[in-house]
Amino acid sequence: MDVLMDLVSDDLQAVNALIMKHMQSNVVLIPQLAGHLIAAGGKRLRPLLTLASARLCGYQGDRHFGLAACIEFIHTATLLHDDVVDESDLRRGRDTANAIFGNKPSVLVGDFLFSRAFQLMSRDSSLEVIRILSDASAIIAEGEVQQLMTTNDLETDRDAYLEVISGKTAVLFAASCQLGAVVAERPENEEQALENYGQYLGIAFQLVDDILDYSAKQAALGKTVGDDFREGKMTLPIILAYEKADSEEKVFWKRVIEDLDQNDDDLDTAIALMNKYNALEDSMAKAREYVEKAITELDIFPDSPEKSALIGAVQFSIAREF
Amino acid sequence: MDVLMDLVSDDLQAVNALIMKHMQSNVVLIPQLAGHLIAAGGKRLRPLLTLASARLCGYQGDRHFGLAACIEFIHTATLLHDDVVDESDLRRGRDTANAIFGNKPSVLVGDFLFSRAFQLMSRDSSLEVIRILSDASAIIAEGEVQQLMTTNDLETDRDAYLEVISGKTAVLFAASCQLGAVVAERPENEEQALENYGQYLGIAFQLVDDILDYSAKQAALGKTVGDDFREGKMTLPIILAYEKADSEEKVFWKRVIEDLDQNDDDLDTAIALMNKYNALEDSMAKAREYVEKAITELDIFPDSPEKSALIGAVQFSIAREF
Repeated sequence: MDVLMDLVSDDLQAVNALIMKHMQSNVVLIPQLAGHLIAAGGKRLRPLLTLASARLCGYQGDRHFGLAACIEFIHTATLLHDDVVDESDLRRGRDTANAIFGNKPSVLVGDFLFSRAFQLMSRDSSLEVIRILSDASAIIAEGEVQQLMTTNDLETDRDAYLEVISGKTAVLFAASCQLGAVVAERPENEEQALENYGQYLGIAFQLVDDILDYSAKQAALGKTVGDDFREGKMTLPIILAYEKADSEEKVFWKRVIEDLDQNDDDLDTAIALMNKYNALEDSMAKAREYVEKAITELDIFPDSPEKSALIGAVQFSIAREF
Repeated sequence: MDVLMDLVSDDLQAVNALIMKHMQSNVVLIPQLAGHLIAAGGKRLRPLLTLASARLCGYQGDRHFGLAACIEFIHTATLLHDDVVDESDLRRGRDTANAIFGNKPSVLVGDFLFSRAFQLMSRDSSLEVIRILSDASAIIAEGEVQQLMTTNDLETDRDAYLEVISGKTAVLFAASCQLGAVVAERPENEEQALENYGQYLGIAFQLVDDILDYSAKQAALGKTVGDDFREGKMTLPIILAYEKADSEEKVFWKRVIEDLDQNDDDLDTAIALMNKYNALEDSMAKAREYVEKAITELDIFPDSPEKSALIGAVQFSIAREF
């Protein structure tokens, strides 16, 4: 990840300058609230992917700076709306904008950032770019709604889960990478390869996120665990543990996930059941599968520092503290 | 209003068909929830304005059908997000989507409709149209945030109020009308005239809405009154009554609006104070001013059934049951 960061650090500064510039508004609460999230030192993972992909494609211009800023705006808007949605209390290790400013402003500032992204695109970009990012945004919303529908539903299977995370997370990773090829006007097969790379990376990234929510190491580091559990969110570790559950365990899962009737020690019980059936390890194996698929997509590109950095980004996605 | 409706009823059917087609999704909750609001028989006021404006400009094509559908999607998205925001229980005479489906799905389905609007534009439209509607969306969000900031703040003055309603309401009316000239490729002065017409109409419309919230006639008809009052929203009737308040009345306004410490008979007291200072009548006079300004903007267009219908639409906006 550091390699990627070093490689495009100048570019990233240009993107950050655009982000700070375009999140301004005469309505002072907007930059205050947006800045809380945007300036909070997010990893800028998606903009980094756009910058590296554009370089991988030999792009020499500066259109990708604005696009990377647009992608970060769309991502931030979804975070703000997701905060409302999930009633989560912590994100990126600090209080959410939602917890501090309230639901109302969070929704509206999300709308502002989303609109601002399309404003910028309508001035500096092409209908093709707008098509890619509006398609991505619609799929993100569909994925989030589908996630709501599968929450508390033990019948949710692996396919449904993969569909949810493909939509809510992976599609914006895919668009971030694809746009690198689009601005560089590379042929269709390179555009497709970068889109696939981003898609697979995004799936691996979300899989690991969902595994970390049950990680003992996270708990030891003082990070919150069990957020998904407390909501009854159907992530892969639960799906795999429930697949193999005996009838007594099924009663447990029904109570804690479907009825959301949870006691203090239920999270520990859930993790114990996951460990009993190797659900966390098997979920990691699935993440590794997608990592391999992502890396394979880069085969068509000649070796370069950018390619190495993109490979490194995928490996980072599954090597996070566990 | 009926004249306008009759004039473009075939066109409106085409728009409705596009709306129903494009709000579909494999995620079944999306059309369910969106349909609750969209199919609930909203007045389709903004699409009607686009259709009539395009005809006024002599447009013969069919690009405006899709644009009218996009505008209704953006409008519906803002309603869904506004429901979250205002915790309002009734809209258009039935339970809000928010009350029935919950905040979470309402926010996300709003996001879907908003994204869908830009998806459609990216395929069937121009960067100019996307510029107009993304600008409008950003200004709507700014207006809504500014409204939050003025709520419970008795220092809010007429100018601040006009800025809020210009943003949150009028700008989408303005865009709806402007786009009629844009698709017809009319000269700049006609585009500007229609934009201004829509802007003034939207301001008048919102002024009347805000007056109706304190209307005895509304209460007699069994409609909810006092929603704005209960939230401490600073609309023109309160601003005008507070401007003239004596020191005892100022204490009252401070308690009910700033502290939101309200008793059962406070709404009646508020209305009595508004009547004492002609605040409702003066607000209506202000609405009529904007009606006149709107109609004047149409002077550059030759007489036609469309022009008469657009004049009728403005008159309807202030003649609603009072």
